[in-house]
Amino acid sequence: MAEWLRNCWYMAAWADELPPGSNLTRTIIDVPLLLWRDGEGRARALVDRCAHRLAPLSMGRIERDIVRCGYHGLAFDGNTGRCIHNPHGPITTALAVRAYALAERHKALWIWMGEQDRADEDAIPDLSFADSASRHAFSGGYMPTAADHRLLEDNILDLSHGDYLHAETLGGGSFTRAGVKVEERGDTVFVRWSAKNEKAIPIWQPELPDPDMMVDMTTEVLWHPSGVMLLDGILTSANGMAGVEIVTRNAHVMTPETATTTHYFYCNSRNYRTDDAEYNQGIAAGLAMAFGGEDKPMIEAQQARIGKADLLECGPALISIDNASTRARRIYRRLVEAEKKAMESALQ
Amino acid sequence: MAEWLRNCWYMAAWADELPPGSNLTRTIIDVPLLLWRDGEGRARALVDRCAHRLAPLSMGRIERDIVRCGYHGLAFDGNTGRCIHNPHGPITTALAVRAYALAERHKALWIWMGEQDRADEDAIPDLSFADSASRHAFSGGYMPTAADHRLLEDNILDLSHGDYLHAETLGGGSFTRAGVKVEERGDTVFVRWSAKNEKAIPIWQPELPDPDMMVDMTTEVLWHPSGVMLLDGILTSANGMAGVEIVTRNAHVMTPETATTTHYFYCNSRNYRTDDAEYNQGIAAGLAMAFGGEDKPMIEAQQARIGKADLLECGPALISIDNASTRARRIYRRLVEAEKKAMESALQ
Amino acid sequence: MAEWLRNCWYMAAWADELPPGSNLTRTIIDVPLLLWRDGEGRARALVDRCAHRLAPLSMGRIERDIVRCGYHGLAFDGNTGRCIHNPHGPITTALAVRAYALAERHKALWIWMGEQDRADEDAIPDLSFADSASRHAFSGGYMPTAADHRLLEDNILDLSHGDYLHAETLGGGSFTRAGVKVEERGDTVFVRWSAKNEKAIPIWQPELPDPDMMVDMTTEVLWHPSGVMLLDGILTSANGMAGVEIVTRNAHVMTPETATTTHYFYCNSRNYRTDDAEYNQGIAAGLAMAFGGEDKPMIEAQQARIGKADLLECGPALISIDNASTRARRIYRRLVEAEKKAMESALQ
Repeated sequence: MAEWLRNCWYMAAWADELPPGSNLTRTIIDVPLLLWRDGEGRARALVDRCAHRLAPLSMGRIERDIVRCGYHGLAFDGNTGRCIHNPHGPITTALAVRAYALAERHKALWIWMGEQDRADEDAIPDLSFADSASRHAFSGGYMPTAADHRLLEDNILDLSHGDYLHAETLGGGSFTRAGVKVEERGDTVFVRWSAKNEKAIPIWQPELPDPDMMVDMTTEVLWHPSGVMLLDGILTSANGMAGVEIVTRNAHVMTPETATTTHYFYCNSRNYRTDDAEYNQGIAAGLAMAFGGEDKPMIEAQQARIGKADLLECGPALISIDNASTRARRIYRRLVEAEKKAMESALQ
Repeated sequence: MAEWLRNCWYMAAWADELPPGSNLTRTIIDVPLLLWRDGEGRARALVDRCAHRLAPLSMGRIERDIVRCGYHGLAFDGNTGRCIHNPHGPITTALAVRAYALAERHKALWIWMGEQDRADEDAIPDLSFADSASRHAFSGGYMPTAADHRLLEDNILDLSHGDYLHAETLGGGSFTRAGVKVEERGDTVFVRWSAKNEKAIPIWQPELPDPDMMVDMTTEVLWHPSGVMLLDGILTSANGMAGVEIVTRNAHVMTPETATTTHYFYCNSRNYRTDDAEYNQGIAAGLAMAFGGEDKPMIEAQQARIGKADLLECGPALISIDNASTRARRIYRRLVEAEKKAMESALQ
Repeated sequence: MAEWLRNCWYMAAWADELPPGSNLTRTIIDVPLLLWRDGEGRARALVDRCAHRLAPLSMGRIERDIVRCGYHGLAFDGNTGRCIHNPHGPITTALAVRAYALAERHKALWIWMGEQDRADEDAIPDLSFADSASRHAFSGGYMPTAADHRLLEDNILDLSHGDYLHAETLGGGSFTRAGVKVEERGDTVFVRWSAKNEKAIPIWQPELPDPDMMVDMTTEVLWHPSGVMLLDGILTSANGMAGVEIVTRNAHVMTPETATTTHYFYCNSRNYRTDDAEYNQGIAAGLAMAFGGEDKPMIEAQQARIGKADLLECGPALISIDNASTRARRIYRRLVEAEKKAMESALQ
């Protein structure tokens, strides 16, 4: 059984995965959840398992902010998880299901899986670029992936793979040749790739006055222990030519489903062709292709080789490019251990 | 590995699942079995695994009351399981397979999985209503279900679920409002729901002089530890109107296949429209729909939430309606322990 | 986890499974392998798992005798497995993958999974009949089988099953009635069935002057611990009639994939109708039918009954025909133990 970080905001879904009147079942850190929108359109989350005999509540009926089990008719309050109707007798305190704080922010739904009184919405990672992006300069996606969330995070913490795995779109060697700075900032890990005097990566060449011109490219990744990763890419002219500036802002979010499966959410915004709907669709398709057709098969195959072991138990020959991912794994481990210890001392 | 009750008659199949000249493989309490009819049409059962090298005997040839392994030609007597031909040398005592007493009664085949000298056919539960039911007032079915047999038995031991899971056919609240009596009778559990002065459940309304008239409904369930459950339903007029009497007699039989899969056999007879073939087909279709489309998905989903654990290990919040199922589980547990102890002392 | 014999030549593939410019992934004794032909057409083998982060090398690029990982661009020498290019920094000694000796002989590729300095090609079993067979008197095949390699070897070490499982082609009882000689020859097991004054087995009857004439048939099997089994069949006239001589030479090769799956390679040559292409195709189809339609289902069903246990743990009632297979299993066990001991003392 995997050990999970609990006291953090996990991205549970894109907000538009849950239109008014709909519901969604999704497992996060091994907990089956029922998500729905109540009468006021507010998203809510209960464990998808009746307190009585463990039948999935999602097979019952949602009545605005109440969920009624389809098996024996017990009804639970969507806000607190408390039983509010037992057709068969008194309501005992055991008749309650776990309710989770669910916040809607930055076009996404965020869930707090730990101690509910610590669920401070101010701690939700800042993805405000998603709010301010213009309609045709933004796209996002969701990709269930059969791999440990850490393998997916490692992948973004080491973008040098772009030169090989995404040769047609990000390749050319600039990531491999770039200067790399890795920094632990509290419980986050920050990485910056500084590629100087390079030809632009393939996807950006058509956007330049001259596709072969020399540019500087800076890519920054900020990893959070909850699997939320911000990725900014900036291109400027290497020789100071004015008006050449490409900026993209991205999020890669890896929410663990089980020890070997992960919900991969991603989105992208940019500062060019911001009103070009067709180009935007092309970007969306390209991202789906790169993540679904290149990253996903490689990382799932990596997971298959690792099996149920932990990557680090398999004796990988770690090299310089694994610096950031090694730090992130260490922080994650430390936070999980700290939560465990806190829970144990709370129980004493 | 699940622990099983062995010294009891399990329902192995409906008799018509095994027409003359046919055979059937079925696993019961983790034992793979070969069932067939011998020369005189008598049903027989051997473990479906050759004594020699464990190949399934069902891949061999059945020669009336003898089964010959298809791999190396060893032949076994269908009655005793003893090897009666070894083409390659002498017949050693080890060359025998387990044979099981198999009785045909009440349109069903019953198998005794325990000590064979204790297989007393008088101990077969009384399903004689199935024998006496007229052709067009009887129907039965078989539904393999991916759930622990106890979850399926719990389901019948608490018919209050009819109000919620089968709202269109059994619903209306009468089961929930009914007075319930639970009684342990030896190693069986008896439950009676007495619903007084209620509107009839939906399926019965069309059979009444006035569908909205007030009726009394009594439902009785008798659970046996082998998973055989008799269910009688009786409706009479609440105000003594003569001639209003509906009686149905049913069996729900849960024969364990493995720890998480069960053979669910059921049948139904009634005292009205006893010559109405079309209505009878409708009832058969309705039962298949209710069990296959309502009970089965719910209980399989419940099993999925429980996983490989036992329900009671998952901390269910048991309430009044779980009284009968709790007793049945306790009796089952006690009988299994008693068999275990008896076997241990026999070995000393 | 199964324990495997390592210091031996396993048949990895038929040579024509790996045409020039192609590659093949295949797991042998639980090791995932990448096989390909290098610039000179020489077949090579590396473990199919990058030293860095375990991604399958088969998802990368093969550049003649070099394999480049598709994830981060590390390149490995196909001959030694050493990293010859790390685009991200120095080449550490840990940056190496396991390379395996791969020899091409007798139309097959042979791999040495153990200590590489002990890989002596002279130890490859002699299947030279496959080299000298004329084109239309030879056929071979490959059949992945979901069974422990030992069950498949047992099957050839006891050909009496031909009378039952292959009644239409090899049946008639001659194998069962034959005198059987079993001999351990070093680490191999030799078995000879001598059937005297019998009618020929069905497949050979059409080749005789009189299909019903009396013949002598000798069948010899030589088992090697690596799962390579040579099988020769010889028919002569029982009454000395000149010119009646049928000779077939066959190989049955069981290369373990995992504990419960095996690569089954087979081939057949003969001394009659050696230029009859159509007959040869019929033989090829017949072998595929016998092995795929008769042996494989029976042995896979046997495996299913055994599950994850070892056959011998399941209490089989061994009889005379199990003599050879019991010896082979004992030799195999002894060799595995010896390797284990040698490895342990090397580590001290």
